[in-house]
Amino acid sequence: MQEPEKPRRKHQSLSQRDQKHLWHPLTQHKLAGEMLAVVRAKAALLFDEDGKSYIDGISSWYTCIYGHCNEKITEKVAAQMQQLDQIVFSGFTHEPAIRLSEALMEILPKNQDKLFFSDNGSTATEIGIKMALQYHHNLGNDRNVMLAFEEGFHGDTFGAMSVSGLSVYNGAFEDHFIRVERIPVPNGDNNEEVLQKLQELIQTHKIAGFIYEPLVQGAAAMKMHDAQGLNEILKLCRENEIITVADEVMTGFGKTGKNFASEYLEEQPDIICMSKALTAGLLPMAVTSCSRKIYDAFYSDEISKGLFHGHTYTANPLACTAALAGIALLTSNEIQQDIARVMKAHQEFGKKIRQHPKVKNLRQLGVILAFELDVQMERYGDLRNQLFQHFMDSGVFLRPLGNTIYVLPPYVITDGQLTEIYNSIEKALENF
Amino acid sequence: MQEPEKPRRKHQSLSQRDQKHLWHPLTQHKLAGEMLAVVRAKAALLFDEDGKSYIDGISSWYTCIYGHCNEKITEKVAAQMQQLDQIVFSGFTHEPAIRLSEALMEILPKNQDKLFFSDNGSTATEIGIKMALQYHHNLGNDRNVMLAFEEGFHGDTFGAMSVSGLSVYNGAFEDHFIRVERIPVPNGDNNEEVLQKLQELIQTHKIAGFIYEPLVQGAAAMKMHDAQGLNEILKLCRENEIITVADEVMTGFGKTGKNFASEYLEEQPDIICMSKALTAGLLPMAVTSCSRKIYDAFYSDEISKGLFHGHTYTANPLACTAALAGIALLTSNEIQQDIARVMKAHQEFGKKIRQHPKVKNLRQLGVILAFELDVQMERYGDLRNQLFQHFMDSGVFLRPLGNTIYVLPPYVITDGQLTEIYNSIEKALENF
Repeated sequence: MQEPEKPRRKHQSLSQRDQKHLWHPLTQHKLAGEMLAVVRAKAALLFDEDGKSYIDGISSWYTCIYGHCNEKITEKVAAQMQQLDQIVFSGFTHEPAIRLSEALMEILPKNQDKLFFSDNGSTATEIGIKMALQYHHNLGNDRNVMLAFEEGFHGDTFGAMSVSGLSVYNGAFEDHFIRVERIPVPNGDNNEEVLQKLQELIQTHKIAGFIYEPLVQGAAAMKMHDAQGLNEILKLCRENEIITVADEVMTGFGKTGKNFASEYLEEQPDIICMSKALTAGLLPMAVTSCSRKIYDAFYSDEISKGLFHGHTYTANPLACTAALAGIALLTSNEIQQDIARVMKAHQEFGKKIRQHPKVKNLRQLGVILAFELDVQMERYGDLRNQLFQHFMDSGVFLRPLGNTIYVLPPYVITDGQLTEIYNSIEKALENF
Repeated sequence: MQEPEKPRRKHQSLSQRDQKHLWHPLTQHKLAGEMLAVVRAKAALLFDEDGKSYIDGISSWYTCIYGHCNEKITEKVAAQMQQLDQIVFSGFTHEPAIRLSEALMEILPKNQDKLFFSDNGSTATEIGIKMALQYHHNLGNDRNVMLAFEEGFHGDTFGAMSVSGLSVYNGAFEDHFIRVERIPVPNGDNNEEVLQKLQELIQTHKIAGFIYEPLVQGAAAMKMHDAQGLNEILKLCRENEIITVADEVMTGFGKTGKNFASEYLEEQPDIICMSKALTAGLLPMAVTSCSRKIYDAFYSDEISKGLFHGHTYTANPLACTAALAGIALLTSNEIQQDIARVMKAHQEFGKKIRQHPKVKNLRQLGVILAFELDVQMERYGDLRNQLFQHFMDSGVFLRPLGNTIYVLPPYVITDGQLTEIYNSIEKALENF
């Protein structure tokens, strides 16, 4: 007797339809499984097409820190859409950009004075690099080398790739990189050696600028370094007229417990790159801010001393509106209390697992909690993928970087949801 | 007797507030005046803070082709904001991206098969360049030079700057550019010479890919070139396994009278870059599409053969929703009739002014009408600025590129508004 035919699915799932024409970022599709289709999100929760929910433990790549689909943001963007959607930002301006510039100046380090807009972290750092190189070019200084940390990550366009030490799969492009010299991050023990190395590089190379992720290197797996050591590096840069570019794309907007990681340091950068949480997880946008000193080097009777960089949707009014609503939330008592609450919960949990034999290098800054699972794993290997799947099966979206487990939740996450994340981590400690 | 004191303005104007902290793109602020503050936009009209209106004759840099604040688009984006704002696109997918991939495949040239998302034209072309270089790298071919047109423009990040022949103010960065060889555009008279030059370059250089703006070079001042000549270049590239990258950031989505300029050619590109009007003038987003041949060269058991490029807001659900609504409009009878109507009006106007002694090189493709005013002008010079001001004073936003006057209006522009633009151009012919 013949088996009854399986009822044919009338409609393919979203995950199946995805496979036909989409090429996903940072993905080797032959080795990756189906992409999980998310159909809805609210506050700290994601919902897939089968109705299963997941706690967004990394704020969708460090963006949605006030929670998904937050009405305090979406209502303002919806209103702006009926008023002014887009206008050329060369020769023109608009109120959302102006108000955003005023709001950002309230929270940025005091030496910051001017803002240059773009669309993502890569373009924000490219603009930072261009500002540093052209600063010296405009002043007639012969400096054309960038300095960066060994395991920094600053984006995927050619300039940004060049300064990223952590470009593991960029073999096809290395012939084309801009000139970069590197120093190790200061860890408190090696500070003197790092300064020594920097002194040598200053003697032997024409260093124009130094680009760095302050205190936390995100893509390097939430590696944290020594504030005092970084401060001394920045001081040495200042004394040698090396323009400092803080890449706060990941660290900005409260994640470290302060608005910007740079606030932990005495020495302030000449230039700061912002994106990700800038727009509260709604829309792509980036800002590169700088001090008056930088701006003045471009302000001239010679047209060619200007910064001839521009993207079409620069300072998009809808993205500016989202950013403004985000900063209003960031500076509210409610969100500041949420940040303190998450920091405290992380501290408690950290104490609990710190002594576990499989927990290595437990570290925390603000709402960022990270440690290495003491198990050998490739960054994109099978065991790492099993670890990822363990979390997803527990209804928790964490995205281990190799064997580094980290949590960077939306500030509005509930205590119960935090506990679920911690529980799923403890289960991972048992099972791996 | 003392003059009565002028009443002090309680509030600064937006244009005044703008000056405090904003650094505008492509602007030498010492030579630029105040930025004009736009507070509202609807269909083809912009309104400044004093209530004066301007006809948006260049669709806000070729983006808002269905008109500003079009409810058929904004309503869909507002609904999407309540459902799903943002999700990591690595490991995850969502319906707006999937539906957009299906909709784009309906209108793209038939050989296109896969889509890779990013945020702006610069990143779209950087991804195109990376695909071309890594294609050969993955196949074990020793090819590391890009080919480009002499006056092409492809963006402002380092890779995009490198291939742009038209980077007049990039002196500070030229040390850092990727390797590029250039050929002139074919103009119908020089086609054989251009092919000859290309043959020589193929013999002497290891050319990986050719990036070009098909038929219309936007930033080069709407220069148009010969379709047959371009077709022969693409054929020669194909025969020599040079990957062809069509930069349709400016030309895409109906502006040339067809959905893509590539449709005017027999030879189809391996890769197509899209942005600007992709999202109907609402939000930043870009797509780099490619043929199956390109994708297959990255599809491998080796992780490192994947394309390790990714921006945080890649395939942002709100931008995908705007793009979907835009494509629905583009393919509607109404908008197709609008495109035909604008093309016809341009033709009539072109006939009228073609013989004018000050009109040089009048040219039209689709809704793009351009000519040179036969008066010497610097690209960013005083006379050019006076010409710009003439249009603004007439209530028309046109943005001359040096002495090139061009019109690229929203498809929904009314006949009356088109007439106002034409009248202001005729006045310019009298007065300059």
